Amino acid sequence: MGTGMWLDGFIAADWGTTNRRAYLIDRSGSCIAEFEDAKGILSVPAGGFDAEVAEMRERLGDKPLLLAGMIGSNRGWVEAPYVPCPAGIEELARGLVWAGEREAIVPGVSFIGDGRADVMRGEEVQLVGAIASGLVPSNCLVCHPGTHNKWAVVAGGLVTSFRTVMTGELYNLLKEHSILADLLKPDVEPDDSFRSGVQRALDYHDAQAELFTVRARVLLGQAPPETAASYASGLLIGSDVRIGLSGNAADNVIVMGRPELTELYAAALDVAGVSCIEIDGERCFLAGIVKIAEMMR
Amino acid sequence: MGTGMWLDGFIAADWGTTNRRAYLIDRSGSCIAEFEDAKGILSVPAGGFDAEVAEMRERLGDKPLLLAGMIGSNRGWVEAPYVPCPAGIEELARGLVWAGEREAIVPGVSFIGDGRADVMRGEEVQLVGAIASGLVPSNCLVCHPGTHNKWAVVAGGLVTSFRTVMTGELYNLLKEHSILADLLKPDVEPDDSFRSGVQRALDYHDAQAELFTVRARVLLGQAPPETAASYASGLLIGSDVRIGLSGNAADNVIVMGRPELTELYAAALDVAGVSCIEIDGERCFLAGIVKIAEMMR
Repeated sequence: MGTGMWLDGFIAADWGTTNRRAYLIDRSGSCIAEFEDAKGILSVPAGGFDAEVAEMRERLGDKPLLLAGMIGSNRGWVEAPYVPCPAGIEELARGLVWAGEREAIVPGVSFIGDGRADVMRGEEVQLVGAIASGLVPSNCLVCHPGTHNKWAVVAGGLVTSFRTVMTGELYNLLKEHSILADLLKPDVEPDDSFRSGVQRALDYHDAQAELFTVRARVLLGQAPPETAASYASGLLIGSDVRIGLSGNAADNVIVMGRPELTELYAAALDVAGVSCIEIDGERCFLAGIVKIAEMMR
Repeated sequence: MGTGMWLDGFIAADWGTTNRRAYLIDRSGSCIAEFEDAKGILSVPAGGFDAEVAEMRERLGDKPLLLAGMIGSNRGWVEAPYVPCPAGIEELARGLVWAGEREAIVPGVSFIGDGRADVMRGEEVQLVGAIASGLVPSNCLVCHPGTHNKWAVVAGGLVTSFRTVMTGELYNLLKEHSILADLLKPDVEPDDSFRSGVQRALDYHDAQAELFTVRARVLLGQAPPETAASYASGLLIGSDVRIGLSGNAADNVIVMGRPELTELYAAALDVAGVSCIEIDGERCFLAGIVKIAEMMR
């Protein structure tokens, strides 16, 4: 740390389990080139990360690398141990792990408390980036939908606790492998069927109790099959929203992530009577990774 | 109906989605031969049921057939429309559908009410058999674990309502395809880990909220990996038990099904402070199918 090498721009990457998004950041902190591909960590064989990093440099330039996400997990390149809550941008910068002289990996964040344990890798850069750049208030509840939705409590500009809800993965499992698979083929929309699923989950308090009704409603002529996907997603996301709001003040809710997902969670929060602000997760990632790089100059 | 052909014994089958169990019943109503194989309805090509039925007769004898389960669904041999709740053995016998002169199919049961819809196929024979033969009281709450657990309310000797909870399928999806797959490889036992998962679900009210902690607890050294499968199963079954007991009197709870599953649900009910009686589902099926055949004599 503290070297001058980051002054002349760098390559940032959000390197996840199944995908990799890489950005060339210039000396002013702007993204001037980028690419995304399917070279997530699970597609890289053991010992193969040096070659993948070299390929990133071929595409974006011979710059230092600042990597975040599952690349720092025990299945990734070099393990970057979790930083415990409360965590902010300084804790992440202090926890950087160097995979080489010009390759740093951002640590994940862990939470132990309330009789449970939780971890995140990747979302923390978006969270601290949004906080540090003023995109979100320093006290708020952040919902970060994805394969594993995160509800993060931000207080005093730090991530003080969070909870992971596997909603995205559960929906995908049901869509790809379950008895509901045929019914879940259509795209999910935040329409009336979605909202009625949300309302049902909010009223009844448990998607597990209601998922089979998605099939039974259609078999018994109580709902047209084309509404099943949105209704099922509404059940799961409604249940997720109830979980996230439980015990948390709901006056400052931020939904951060990919717009097609934040739209669904914003609709579900609306059904729950909670207003929110949607912000783009990629913008937050870039803000966060640039802030971390600035701390190393 | 009303023919004498059932007097000289018959073949009964519980013909499900992935498996088929067939029994030769003698004139006294006793099972004297049986087999089980993987020829569930999804493995039988369109138009292939005549051949499968002929093969059953080759193995067990040239007898009339009384079939139950998914064989009567819209993906089965001949569709046997659902009989609505309240339903007992007479309603099932009246709803028999004939696939041939000597081949009858027992209908499933449907429930529409409380703002939801539900269906069962196969469990209804066990339920009415247990009621008609006095294996269960005429007023009770029956839990029938399986791929799709059923909580059935029995009143006055009839199934008056029921709810399906997809717990078995959810666990299998997580075990086979999810980020938890590696951790869920061991067999589930009703041990302390299982019971702590049940307690957590009963306290916190939602498996969806807690499933990811199965992984995080291990990553952060809060739980040994070999406890993860039982803990995760405890979370799902604990949540299922809370759903089943919700709004239902819990003084007469019967857990019916395969012993390795009824054992887990009995342990979860015990954590919830509810005593139950476990009974073997196959015995109930045989009691039910014989009672239905008797009504046709």
